[in-house]
Parts: sequence; structure tokens; C-alpha cells
Amino acid sequence: MTSWLPSLKTNTAEEGYELAVKLSRMAVKLTQPDAEARERMRGQYAEDADALIVASHVVATNFATVAAANGYWRDAP
Amino acid sequence: MTSWLPSLKTNTAEEGYELAVKLSRMAVKLTQPDAEARERMRGQYAEDADALIVASHVVATNFATVAAANGYWRDAP
Amino acid sequence: MTSWLPSLKTNTAEEGYELAVKLSRMAVKLTQPDAEARERMRGQYAEDADALIVASHVVATNFATVAAANGYWRDAP
Amino acid sequence: MTSWLPSLKTNTAEEGYELAVKLSRMAVKLTQPDAEARERMRGQYAEDADALIVASHVVATNFATVAAANGYWRDAP
Amino acid sequence: MTSWLPSLKTNTAEEGYELAVKLSRMAVKLTQPDAEARERMRGQYAEDADALIVASHVVATNFATVAAANGYWRDAP
Amino acid sequence: MTSWLPSLKTNTAEEGYELAVKLSRMAVKLTQPDAEARERMRGQYAEDADALIVASHVVATNFATVAAANGYWRDAP
Repeated sequence: MTSWLPSLKTNTAEEGYELAVKLSRMAVKLTQPDAEARERMRGQYAEDADALIVASHVVATNFATVAAANGYWRDAP
Repeated sequence: MTSWLPSLKTNTAEEGYELAVKLSRMAVKLTQPDAEARERMRGQYAEDADALIVASHVVATNFATVAAANGYWRDAP
Repeated sequence: MTSWLPSLKTNTAEEGYELAVKLSRMAVKLTQPDAEARERMRGQYAEDADALIVASHVVATNFATVAAANGYWRDAP
Repeated sequence: MTSWLPSLKTNTAEEGYELAVKLSRMAVKLTQPDAEARERMRGQYAEDADALIVASHVVATNFATVAAANGYWRDAP
Repeated sequence: MTSWLPSLKTNTAEEGYELAVKLSRMAVKLTQPDAEARERMRGQYAEDADALIVASHVVATNFATVAAANGYWRDAP
Repeated sequence: MTSWLPSLKTNTAEEGYELAVKLSRMAVKLTQPDAEARERMRGQYAEDADALIVASHVVATNFATVAAANGYWRDAP
């Protein structure tokens, strides 16, 4: 079976940011496995500035981890 | 007696994420030891986008710790 | 007089987690020294998913500190 | 195609702070891609002290990452 | 004039925790310099579990800094 | 033009704390550039314990960065 998280390594900072978003969503998925329920809530909080800001905080926290794991992509071309 | 947390070491990043989820839930368990009460609340906050996002933040914070403990799984195959 | 926090050193990860819980509660104790008032609030927030999740976040933040202080218990048996 | 995040490297601390702001906004953009909807919410939360403070927290978290990535600009002139 | 924060160095972990509490309160003091207003709010949030938990989070974040500054008091007697 | 953030270096821990406060306010300024609007909100949240506590959290997060950037002022006189 393929892992949804084979590694924290990414080629670029931008891909690292995308991985941080994925990590942030996975925790929600584990608590609310019903895709339809998640879609419904997404429609709601996409219009709710407070929720969007907190969601951005979660991504920031995960991005810190991914960035550290990649040595901040300092050796990237 | 077996420890619920024998180590922070995991074989893969995905297992590390699962451990982060476990760490996040354990704090709730310690404050609310009644499994039925927890189950009841879970049904509620699974429909509450704000709560799910904050729960995801807790997992992110614990994942940072687990990832650091595992050297970010850099030597994983 | 004995210190309530003689050290951040613990023998195991599980004991480290318990210390993180203790650190989280101590800040509450310092602001609300009345044990009865704390007990009363505890009964309330034990039924409040949002409060439990945020409490779990505090434990996660303190656990990060305790884990770092213990070198993530990498040398534990 | 140009990346919106080619690197975490910036010349100065001030530019690093600007990058942290950019990182903070990008997560919002990914959840709410409609620029008009974002503009509407911005008008609202710009008058909401609570939202502004939490937004400032997100920037602080991202700034920590950018600052670490840049060695805290210690060698800057 | 004496500084309210001459150093982050403390002799023990417990003193470090006290310094973290002091750092947490100072930010409040800088925004609300009126001691009477702070005392009034203190009476209120001391009965508010949510506020106490968030206050505990602030202490946890400052304690992480103080603990790192002191090498986690590993060399303490 | 002078930068508002020429460096993260400060001579003392206290000055570092002041810089953390400045960093925390700058993010608010960037979202709400109208000084009068900020002043109005300040008057409100200065009476709001919850907002003051969260504001203190932002300062704590920025202080962690500034303290790390300064090697925790370990070599200070």
C-alpha cells in the first residue's frame, strides 16, 4: 500500500508548502472521515475569515516542520 | 504494565503522524476520562469546522516534536 | 522546601508527557489559586470539546519543551 | 512557470517579514481562491481586533521559519 | 534604572517557569498599563476556564524560550 | 529609506522583548493601515482579557525568534 506521507523531503520550498497544507488537512480527515461532511464545512469556513486565519496558522506550524526537515532548501538551485 | 508511549521513535513519517494524533488525544483523555462523554463530544465537533481546525493545530504541534525526535526520517529508505 | 519542578529530566517519554500536563496546569493554578474554583471549572470544561482541544494544545507545547530537554529519550532502553 | 515561493532566502530581516506575510496569506488563498470573497472578508476583519491579533500570530509563526532559514540575518551588513 | 528583564538565565527550572509567567504578563501590561483595569479583568478571567487555558498556552510558549536559553537546566545540581 | 527592521540583534533581553512587541504590531499595521482605526480597536481590546491574552501569545512567539537570533543574550555583560 502506498503511504500518503512517504517522506518530509520535497524538492522545493513551494512543494514543501503544499505538503504542509496536506498535513494540515489530514488531521481533519482523521477526525471527520466523511468527505461530504468535510466538503459542506469547507463551503462554510471558506466564507469565515476567523476560520481561514486559524487554518493558515495550522499550515504555518506544519510548514515550520517541513522546512526544518529540508534544511530550509538552502542547497536548492 | 505496558506504556502507552514507550518511545517517540517511529519507522516512518506516516507512523510519526499517527503518534502525533495519539499524543493529541491523550491530553483530552486525561482531562475527560469518561469514554462515553468523549464519544459524545466527538460526534459534535466532527461537524464543527472551527474545532476540527484547532484539533489539526494540536496534531501539527505534536508532529513537530515527533518529527524532530526522529531526525525527520531523513535516513528512512 | 521542595520544588514542584526540580528538573525537566524524566526517565521515559510517558513521564515526560505527565510533566507536560503538570506544567500546563501550574499556569492555571498561579492565576486561580482557589482549588475549589478550579474544580468547578474543570467539571465544566470537561464537557466542552473546544476547551479540551485547546488544553491539549497547551500540553503539546509543553511536551515539545520537555522532549527537547530530554534529547527525545533517544538513549532510553 | 515561476514559483510563488522560489526560496526562503531574503536579503534582509524586513524582506523576511514580508515573506512571512506572504506565506500567511497563501494558505488563505488556497482555501478561498475567490479574490473578491477574500477582499470582502478583509474589509470585515480589518475592523476586528481579535482577527487582526490572530493574523499577527500566523505571521509570527511563519517569521520564525523564515528567520531560521536565513540564520537570523546575522551576517547582514 | 533597573531592567525588568536583565537576563533569561535562571538558577532552576522553577525560577525559569516564574520568568515565563512574568514575560507573559508583561505583554498585557504594555497594552493595558492601568493596573486597576488589569486587576478587574483578572478577577473575571480567573473564573473563565477558556481564558485560563489560553493564558497557560502563553506561559508554555515563553517557558520554551526560557528553557532553551538555560540549556534546559541540564547541568543543574 | 530607513528600514523598520534593520536587524534582529538587540543589546539586551529587554530590548529584544520590545522588538518582539514591535514585530507583533507590524502585522496588524499591514492589514489595517489606518492608524485611527487601530487606535479605536486598541481602546476596545485593552478592556478585553481574551484579546490581551492572545496578543501576549503573539509577543511570546516573536520573542522566541528574537531570543534565538540573539543567542539568548548569553554573552551579555
